[in-house]
Amino acid sequence: MPSSRPASTPSARQGFLEAPLDKAHAEPLQRQLYRRLKEAILEGKLAAGSRLPGSRALAQTLSVSRNTVAIAYEHLVSEGYVRADRQGSTVAALVRPAPREAQPEAGPPSRVALRLSRIRSGPARLDPSTALRPGVPALSHFPLAVWRRMLDHAVREASPAALHYGDPFGQPELRAAIARHLAITRGVHCEPAQVIVTEGAQEALTLCVRLLTNPGDTAWVEDPGYRGAKAAMHAGDLRIVPRRMDGEGMHAGAADWRSRAPRLIYTTPSHQYPTGVVMSVARRLALISAAREHGAWIVEDDYDSEFRHYGEPIGAMQGLVADAPVLYVGTFSKTMFPSLRLGFVVMPARLLASAQDALREMLRGGHSHEQLAMAGFIESGQFARHLGRMRRLYRERQHALREALTRHLRVPHIIEGGQGGLHLALRLPRDFADTRIAEAARRYGMAPMPLSSFAMAPAPEDNGLVLGYGNTAMELLDPLVKRLSQLVLSAGA
Amino acid sequence: MPSSRPASTPSARQGFLEAPLDKAHAEPLQRQLYRRLKEAILEGKLAAGSRLPGSRALAQTLSVSRNTVAIAYEHLVSEGYVRADRQGSTVAALVRPAPREAQPEAGPPSRVALRLSRIRSGPARLDPSTALRPGVPALSHFPLAVWRRMLDHAVREASPAALHYGDPFGQPELRAAIARHLAITRGVHCEPAQVIVTEGAQEALTLCVRLLTNPGDTAWVEDPGYRGAKAAMHAGDLRIVPRRMDGEGMHAGAADWRSRAPRLIYTTPSHQYPTGVVMSVARRLALISAAREHGAWIVEDDYDSEFRHYGEPIGAMQGLVADAPVLYVGTFSKTMFPSLRLGFVVMPARLLASAQDALREMLRGGHSHEQLAMAGFIESGQFARHLGRMRRLYRERQHALREALTRHLRVPHIIEGGQGGLHLALRLPRDFADTRIAEAARRYGMAPMPLSSFAMAPAPEDNGLVLGYGNTAMELLDPLVKRLSQLVLSAGA
Repeated sequence: MPSSRPASTPSARQGFLEAPLDKAHAEPLQRQLYRRLKEAILEGKLAAGSRLPGSRALAQTLSVSRNTVAIAYEHLVSEGYVRADRQGSTVAALVRPAPREAQPEAGPPSRVALRLSRIRSGPARLDPSTALRPGVPALSHFPLAVWRRMLDHAVREASPAALHYGDPFGQPELRAAIARHLAITRGVHCEPAQVIVTEGAQEALTLCVRLLTNPGDTAWVEDPGYRGAKAAMHAGDLRIVPRRMDGEGMHAGAADWRSRAPRLIYTTPSHQYPTGVVMSVARRLALISAAREHGAWIVEDDYDSEFRHYGEPIGAMQGLVADAPVLYVGTFSKTMFPSLRLGFVVMPARLLASAQDALREMLRGGHSHEQLAMAGFIESGQFARHLGRMRRLYRERQHALREALTRHLRVPHIIEGGQGGLHLALRLPRDFADTRIAEAARRYGMAPMPLSSFAMAPAPEDNGLVLGYGNTAMELLDPLVKRLSQLVLSAGA
Repeated sequence: MPSSRPASTPSARQGFLEAPLDKAHAEPLQRQLYRRLKEAILEGKLAAGSRLPGSRALAQTLSVSRNTVAIAYEHLVSEGYVRADRQGSTVAALVRPAPREAQPEAGPPSRVALRLSRIRSGPARLDPSTALRPGVPALSHFPLAVWRRMLDHAVREASPAALHYGDPFGQPELRAAIARHLAITRGVHCEPAQVIVTEGAQEALTLCVRLLTNPGDTAWVEDPGYRGAKAAMHAGDLRIVPRRMDGEGMHAGAADWRSRAPRLIYTTPSHQYPTGVVMSVARRLALISAAREHGAWIVEDDYDSEFRHYGEPIGAMQGLVADAPVLYVGTFSKTMFPSLRLGFVVMPARLLASAQDALREMLRGGHSHEQLAMAGFIESGQFARHLGRMRRLYRERQHALREALTRHLRVPHIIEGGQGGLHLALRLPRDFADTRIAEAARRYGMAPMPLSSFAMAPAPEDNGLVLGYGNTAMELLDPLVKRLSQLVLSAGA
């Protein structure tokens, strides 16, 4: 450090440094000074290597205490704007990044992001109140007052330890309640330890993909089928093979198993989404058998089995055969409300044993209060009561929707998928392009989804509409369907 | 179908079919009959191709209405156990999967799962009340009554639409509150639209990896460093390159950029986790500059900046340079409570524009009530008040911990990382093996973490303990440190 440097440093000549600080301002003086100096250094007004005035001198100039200057300097030193040595404080040499424009664009997002951004996700941002939108439960019929009480009770009664992450697999109370509920209603055989609570069904699917597959592995999906499952598989960089259904559900022969055996099979056997086909027990057993033989895993998404309108509820594949290679996925998004983001996956016991450690790294736990409230909701019988009420409501709405279609729709059509759930699939002749109808319907506040948008390789018969009746009031169904029928007709014109 | 088949079908000879149904049982008769037949078919008691008795005949035998039998049969047909034709009902041919033992084991979990299960995750399942455990805030000091009020208010006041998924990027109220809070406290420059609400910091990191990298890409991490970040990168199948720090933080020269330029850089510049080094502004600017030049992205994890104990809070890298290639990650896990699972990432505006669609597929929204309550907590000033109280509490606890170490620890040591946060890093001579000390400490209800466990390539100086003081009461610190000091001594013996 040259001791011959003049006493008057370069910076001392800068007028901005000597301008008085604002003593009336809420911001403390040392903070004002710190910011003034920091900005001057970043803007290059104080050049690299230049010396700052001594703290005593600057304090005098600014009429502040020497301590004020010392604190500002110390902070600049701790962040590296200034270097301190025995001679005093020197402005550090900083690379000043060139303006944004002069530099190459930061690279594009990942391949997975590109692929996901190409999924046509339809009217995703639509208001849930949009009529005929599939997948939305009757939001205004949810017993919010009861839920508030349960949630408040959980927050009040939980120990401070419940504020921590908790069990990454979910609160034990909720896992036990789910296991009991599934055993009674779905014939699912499991211990509470096999139930893993997730952020809705979507995290359950992501977990299955991450746990069981490597990039490039083959996955079978029903086609047309649930798009969320495909998104999870795209994210896992899987080779997705669409499989057609017939009246008995997804079809796969020995040749399919030979030529492109999957690592993962995604299916909705109880009520195929969106066509409503029920997979026959022969197909179920054959699928389980072949999956075992080839070391594949079946992900059984039982997304709307709670709302069975006709006949007895169909038991889950998971419970059909002891120790089946089936991961059973469920969600409370339809039975409670979507924003709750609670779902679960029931893992085969042997898989769980070998995947325990990996799962602990993949899951974080949390949401203890909501999970405890949900457990209370089930155990108190409120859940069963709510399900009963909603089952009746949805059955009535479906009935009204069918009647309205019969009354107004003057185009040949087939209605499918009404044995349960919150939607019907309406097949239309291919001249009546479903995408065009769906687009026209949006202008009238309706959001039926084009059936073809569920298919990876749409066949001619995949033309139609998926009509949700979960969140559309009874009295609206007739006038809406009347309007929709006109739109169908004009689409064919 | 042979019409010569005798009238007496094989099944009619089965006594079990004729056993009376239990009319007093809660289970409806048709359900009892359905189950009896289904089990007989699955167990092979009713052979494939055998004919079921006519519904009229069976109804007479069982003294039930013909409708009861018809419903049971119909259900068996709909599930595919039985085929109906004009001749009557025939048992379907089913593949009966061989017993589990006779078949090959379903394949092992994915490579990622294997890799994750090898991460030594230490005492993950420990009670949060375990003393000196890093990363746990003062759970019993959280103002739960205020939170309960806020949450209840949000549940009560939210419209039914709030029960739906909501904006996948988070509730607008919360995003605006976070943007304002960050601008004031952290010098982060962003619009609310750039703030994306996530499931804690972990989902934010996962999102960065999924959005920005492809499998096999290189990522730089600080070493020793945060293990959650490494887990997110392992899950993305990245090549993780550990980078050492010096007194100015992570070091990377031109040669490093030439030989193994990263796609992603994970850093905790304000208070390196766990060593507490502050990255100098020169390093920050150089890193931003080089990242721009090479098309890399910087993930800035500002995990505990709210608890600054000495000096002024250090501004974020995100706000240092306009339009920096920085994704700023934050969390409410330490400032509120971990189980809340609320974090966020601030995206560069340009990246957001190009990644909008992919992000919508990656995110689901939800937890509207909790997000609205959090927004209310911030906007009402309760958050700032709570932070102020906790800052004082943690400062006191840190002070007490330091004093206790000075008083009791008779081994040469260096204490690092006390400028902020909830932990101190204690470096020890290498003869005092940190893993052995940590293990011994667990037997006394303490869970300090071995410093070496944070390193991918532990250097001799990475021997030590990370001591959390967030959730350990003042009066316990002295006796605990006394005991711990004895354990350190014995480990060196």
